[in-house]
Amino acid sequence: MASTTAVRRLQQIQRNLTSSASESSYKKKFRIAVVGSGNWGTAVAKLVAENAAEKGQFFEREVRMWVREESVHGRNLTEIINSEHENVRYLPQVTLPTNLVADPNLQNVAKNADIIVINIPHQFLKSVADQLKGIDYSKKVAISCLKGIDVTPNGPKLLSDFIHQHLGLHCGVLSGANIASEVAREKFSETTVAFPVAPNYEQGEPDAPLMKELFQRPYFHVQMSDDTAGVSIGGALKNVIALGAGLVEGAGWGDNAKAAVMRRGLIEMSQFAADYFPSFRPETISTTSAGVADLITSCAGGRNLKVGREFARSGKSIKQIEADLLNGQSAQGLVTAEEVYELLTKQNRLEEFPLMVTIYDIINNGLPISELPNRIRE
Amino acid sequence: MASTTAVRRLQQIQRNLTSSASESSYKKKFRIAVVGSGNWGTAVAKLVAENAAEKGQFFEREVRMWVREESVHGRNLTEIINSEHENVRYLPQVTLPTNLVADPNLQNVAKNADIIVINIPHQFLKSVADQLKGIDYSKKVAISCLKGIDVTPNGPKLLSDFIHQHLGLHCGVLSGANIASEVAREKFSETTVAFPVAPNYEQGEPDAPLMKELFQRPYFHVQMSDDTAGVSIGGALKNVIALGAGLVEGAGWGDNAKAAVMRRGLIEMSQFAADYFPSFRPETISTTSAGVADLITSCAGGRNLKVGREFARSGKSIKQIEADLLNGQSAQGLVTAEEVYELLTKQNRLEEFPLMVTIYDIINNGLPISELPNRIRE
Repeated sequence: MASTTAVRRLQQIQRNLTSSASESSYKKKFRIAVVGSGNWGTAVAKLVAENAAEKGQFFEREVRMWVREESVHGRNLTEIINSEHENVRYLPQVTLPTNLVADPNLQNVAKNADIIVINIPHQFLKSVADQLKGIDYSKKVAISCLKGIDVTPNGPKLLSDFIHQHLGLHCGVLSGANIASEVAREKFSETTVAFPVAPNYEQGEPDAPLMKELFQRPYFHVQMSDDTAGVSIGGALKNVIALGAGLVEGAGWGDNAKAAVMRRGLIEMSQFAADYFPSFRPETISTTSAGVADLITSCAGGRNLKVGREFARSGKSIKQIEADLLNGQSAQGLVTAEEVYELLTKQNRLEEFPLMVTIYDIINNGLPISELPNRIRE
Repeated sequence: MASTTAVRRLQQIQRNLTSSASESSYKKKFRIAVVGSGNWGTAVAKLVAENAAEKGQFFEREVRMWVREESVHGRNLTEIINSEHENVRYLPQVTLPTNLVADPNLQNVAKNADIIVINIPHQFLKSVADQLKGIDYSKKVAISCLKGIDVTPNGPKLLSDFIHQHLGLHCGVLSGANIASEVAREKFSETTVAFPVAPNYEQGEPDAPLMKELFQRPYFHVQMSDDTAGVSIGGALKNVIALGAGLVEGAGWGDNAKAAVMRRGLIEMSQFAADYFPSFRPETISTTSAGVADLITSCAGGRNLKVGREFARSGKSIKQIEADLLNGQSAQGLVTAEEVYELLTKQNRLEEFPLMVTIYDIINNGLPISELPNRIRE
């Protein structure tokens, strides 16, 4: 009966986390800002602006989106977005709500907001956070839509923790099986949001049910979670596993082998999260959009899968493949695989994560792919 | 810390279940038979015969495979298999081991064996079991490689339990992400085997470590499990979920939506197993080849996915699609979806399994696919 209890308990947690917001719960209407206007940044800005327009009981109508100013055919990108309601540079052919206002002034955008949605590429986080300094964030909250974690030789660190420590800004996370172009085109998707109660929370301030109102759309379903680490870690490690799935595809091994790599990947993702984040719950990997669903989407396509596949198929160097497929950019899975490998090496734990280590060894240390089954044999 | 404990506990169970067999543990060399010689039957017969030839310390060399006799270009199929070592009818272009002997006499095959691997299409189980009556099975054991369960309005029943009740033959199960043609061609695959201790077990008789020796190959990795229900149920319900994944593909909704259906499918599979089989453990669905990996493989291709996709894409009737795609055969997912629907209707539980019920309603009751997101919203 223990298992029935476990499943029921999970359902109960989900019910608690999905209780709805009511207007009278909040002390004001909240003003929303979005920091970031790339592909995924603009897709999320579009949907929160749709909610701001529809849910006047919770939110101020206008949503400001910080856009790093650039010139497109001689015009400022912010001016194009605000007059034509289209981000022609990063999300072309998608009409944006008229209440979404592009703004090139980062400090202004952040200063005037109550809820800040942070959605920039991982590699710009440090410099954008530096530019965000000097504002009082004690009455503001944030949600990070960045995928990933920072892994250093001292251990992994959540990006939401980095934001909190760097700015004093309480920060939750959003992650899921969310290919940006599909969300932007309102194709049905799910996501997972973790928004823990802020240390200095007072009645009437933004809470988890409000965050659900902020992101939930008819085409974008939000499940709330209380497991920030679990929601964050899936989005980082799945890139490593997708590289591995690509290796197996490129080697021509078939769907059974690919499913085996993904299965082992799920186990190592859970094990890594459990080892480094005591509050992690395995259900976050095995049952949420940020866990198993995001892994599935990433292994169906995406740049990491393609890099792994091309590596196994062509015998080219990784540098060459990055040049050919990614305009010389790096696939995030390669960076994370190396960071994880260095951490595990330093802690003498390579044997505990045979799949992630083997993927690294195949790509970087000349290990033949044929060794993979032997390495991950249980 | 609870989560760390849970992951560690799982690892401990896996270690116990993966302890190896030693020659001195057994009172004799065991004789293996395979009942069934279709595509999957022959692929499994091939690999157990390879092990019988290599592991003389455990097994008699000769493996008998029951073949329902038929004529192929004027010759008996058994004669072709035994002279050319190829099942030209059901697994062409794969060379079979010379110690695998085709035999048209079902009673002889079963009577002389210690370990019987049962691997026939689900719909023939009842009639083959009837033909197997009249033998003393008290000192024999079996493994069922059939995928699925029987779902009646009185509840679901494991096929291994049917075999035990029908014949008095102790029966375990093998299930996993196992596309037969890939296993037959020795492409890397994993599988899950549950072989509980028999009620009348005596020291020296076949046990779980021996079953691992029987099936484990360099290209076919076996994880042992103690959860017969969990291993069995994934193979049945994944067909229903694959239909749903096909509907979403056919509707052109993209990878996010497909991953959402698969994620919800995993949750409903676990919930169904927990409700009807108290000994079920959720880890079997979330971490084994018979669970999440088999679902992934089935949703990557396969007949259920194709039927769902064609239904959504073409607007044809299911009957017409079965005629066009499957030579008039039925997709197993359609049968299981109906059985589950009838069970839940009788028990007034339709609302507890919204995904499986919605898939049934779309296919059989004219529900528009556009209703799916609303129906599975948490």
